[in-house]
Amino acid sequence: MNELEKLFIETLTSQIRALDQFGTWAKKSNEEVLAEKYVRTKEQLKDIPIIADIDEMQIQDIRLIFQSIALAFELKKGMMCSVVMEMSHEGFGRAVVLADKIVVTNKFFKDAHRYSFRTYDALVADGGKLLEDAIEVYETHKK
Amino acid sequence: MNELEKLFIETLTSQIRALDQFGTWAKKSNEEVLAEKYVRTKEQLKDIPIIADIDEMQIQDIRLIFQSIALAFELKKGMMCSVVMEMSHEGFGRAVVLADKIVVTNKFFKDAHRYSFRTYDALVADGGKLLEDAIEVYETHKK
Repeated sequence: MNELEKLFIETLTSQIRALDQFGTWAKKSNEEVLAEKYVRTKEQLKDIPIIADIDEMQIQDIRLIFQSIALAFELKKGMMCSVVMEMSHEGFGRAVVLADKIVVTNKFFKDAHRYSFRTYDALVADGGKLLEDAIEVYETHKK
Repeated sequence: MNELEKLFIETLTSQIRALDQFGTWAKKSNEEVLAEKYVRTKEQLKDIPIIADIDEMQIQDIRLIFQSIALAFELKKGMMCSVVMEMSHEGFGRAVVLADKIVVTNKFFKDAHRYSFRTYDALVADGGKLLEDAIEVYETHKK
């Protein structure tokens, strides 16, 4: 894991644990928690219908990913970030991370109820990449 | 009305009329349509509870305001814009208008179910000002 990947994973797990009112995740390692929430293998994905409704829980889990980008960005650049996300019940939607007047992350969803990563390593790499891109966009566009 | 106010009002009414499947607004003037949708006098506002749920229809009406800013901005600057809006059922939320990587409009809501303008002139002036500010933010932040 590089520095940004590590930061992303730490931010994401700390948020999940902060929301863990009933101790569901207390005895599990970070990797176990994240795998359970976000990793679906190709085989598992076959069992999730292409068209289906998305529930509030899944929307919240997706939001946490972008919230983590926002928080990690803030830790790294000292600039407050926020997330605006809209999602239809059919899983069409969009999430943006905003740093002041700059859109540092922009993600569209078509079938958000299937939003997942094939392996834990893919989650780590993709999260790190999102964060890296966010910082790059900010550096390019800031005044 | 100045040029931007006029553009805002035209964009807003044309959107409302485009969505008017059942001809509800067909026989009314632009001012009548907008007044019915968006104008609440002080007296009328007293009859709307401070805390109440917001319905889908109202959320859509608010979205149209920001969608109009986005469209009018595009007509003016030749740059595609989009709206991302999130709204809780209690009327807490946020709407942003994005032009490429720049957040040109940013509005928070606390009691969106009460979102309205006291007079038609206030709607015209506020809409024009939103558009003017959006263009200014864009000019300041674009690369």
